[in-house]
Amino acid sequence: MRPTSLGIIGLGAIGGSLARQAKRAGIATVVGWSPEPAERAAAAQQGALDDAPYHARDVVRDADLVVLAAPPLANLELLERLAPAFAARTLITDTGSVKRGIVARAEALGLGPRFAGSHPLAGTHGRGFEASRGDLFQNAVVYITPAAGGERAAGEIAHFWETVAGAHPVTLDAARHDAQLAVTSHLPQVIASLLGVFLARHAPPGASFGPGARDTTRLAASTPALWSEILLLNRDELLPALRALEEPLGELERALETGDAGTLTAWLDRGRVWRRGLDS
Amino acid sequence: MRPTSLGIIGLGAIGGSLARQAKRAGIATVVGWSPEPAERAAAAQQGALDDAPYHARDVVRDADLVVLAAPPLANLELLERLAPAFAARTLITDTGSVKRGIVARAEALGLGPRFAGSHPLAGTHGRGFEASRGDLFQNAVVYITPAAGGERAAGEIAHFWETVAGAHPVTLDAARHDAQLAVTSHLPQVIASLLGVFLARHAPPGASFGPGARDTTRLAASTPALWSEILLLNRDELLPALRALEEPLGELERALETGDAGTLTAWLDRGRVWRRGLDS
Repeated sequence: MRPTSLGIIGLGAIGGSLARQAKRAGIATVVGWSPEPAERAAAAQQGALDDAPYHARDVVRDADLVVLAAPPLANLELLERLAPAFAARTLITDTGSVKRGIVARAEALGLGPRFAGSHPLAGTHGRGFEASRGDLFQNAVVYITPAAGGERAAGEIAHFWETVAGAHPVTLDAARHDAQLAVTSHLPQVIASLLGVFLARHAPPGASFGPGARDTTRLAASTPALWSEILLLNRDELLPALRALEEPLGELERALETGDAGTLTAWLDRGRVWRRGLDS
Repeated sequence: MRPTSLGIIGLGAIGGSLARQAKRAGIATVVGWSPEPAERAAAAQQGALDDAPYHARDVVRDADLVVLAAPPLANLELLERLAPAFAARTLITDTGSVKRGIVARAEALGLGPRFAGSHPLAGTHGRGFEASRGDLFQNAVVYITPAAGGERAAGEIAHFWETVAGAHPVTLDAARHDAQLAVTSHLPQVIASLLGVFLARHAPPGASFGPGARDTTRLAASTPALWSEILLLNRDELLPALRALEEPLGELERALETGDAGTLTAWLDRGRVWRRGLDS
């Protein structure tokens, strides 16, 4: 679909970028809401929005498509609160990085045929509308997770991301999405934080860190409150992944303990081959 | 010291860069050796060396300063093999990232008063002379680890790094150096490899990886044979660090298991504060 009227709830880096990109793509009416009056004002002043009303329900009332771009727990609550205000024709999606909960909530609210989850793989370093960009989703993969009976809505929402945001939609079952993201995204986040927490306690004061340690811990600088929500929403997938790390960790420790250079080199090489493959 | 004649053993990214930088700094005679004839030829042809003899002993014979820039185990062996060829005035250093072994070997060979270890914190992505650069050590921290009775040699070698290579020398006891590097460098390396080995086994085929997962695993692409040597030479420091990771990992798992958002957020925030501090 190419909406005539797009409603965006949440004007942070994700919602703000989508508003900018929709206006650039020529969407006639883009209306947005944030709990922060300053964010609403900035988005309207900078031409990312045609209107920024005081009440969230006034954003969704006449929208062809509503995008929930708040943090994941807020999206769950907003979906429930705004459901009575959606017009019968309105399609709804969200942008959170855990999908089973929001898809189940949409189904429970009877919105299944009009809802599909979205998860754009677009990294942002900053927070809030000031971190938004007019090309954030260009060429980014966006996972689309249909609700029961919502295959048609999922197709329309995938088409929206492709034609309006220049993204590459990939349709995926919500459960498969969450299992995959547990290892490809949530695990790297907690590993970077684990190393950060460890170094906060054990690194000698004034020690220098090279580019390697900086890159390995870069994700540790992510927003704790947001990531706490994400990790807890996906903990049933993340915890088994964390426990499965014990196997390669044990292999490493045994090779070090026994001074087994051949096994250690082969272990390191498995990681090297995988990582090189990521860039090829 | 500012040597009139500098001998460099090993012409990879580190030794090659040092040769380039020494010639740019106007050192009269820079002589180098590599077991690879092609590397010797390339370094001489590109003006990084004044001479590249066939035998390593011909590099060290008339040098004011000899720098061992081979991998760590080769440096240990080269120091022993070349010791009889050093002139009485020659000072000797190396560039490896583990320092107790090479310092002890120098002392055992009676070279203590003329030896100090060096460890430049200069990251290189490539390998071999082709990855060398004329500014690799500019503004880099270089740890200098004196041998017993070698305080004066350490001062001369620190002065060399500062005036010839534009680096910032920091003098440190070899044992303290190795304990510090175990947590600031060797642990980040094995954590990145651990995640790489895990993802090689558990990531779904065709899964997309965002910039976060790429950064967290970048170090996994490092050379396995070289890192196997480094990790084994420092395993008595690295293994306790790996085991000490279990404490923050256990805290994370308990917060996830009990759904304790407050504890999880506080845990993530400790890593965030530490990581932000690295950039300030």
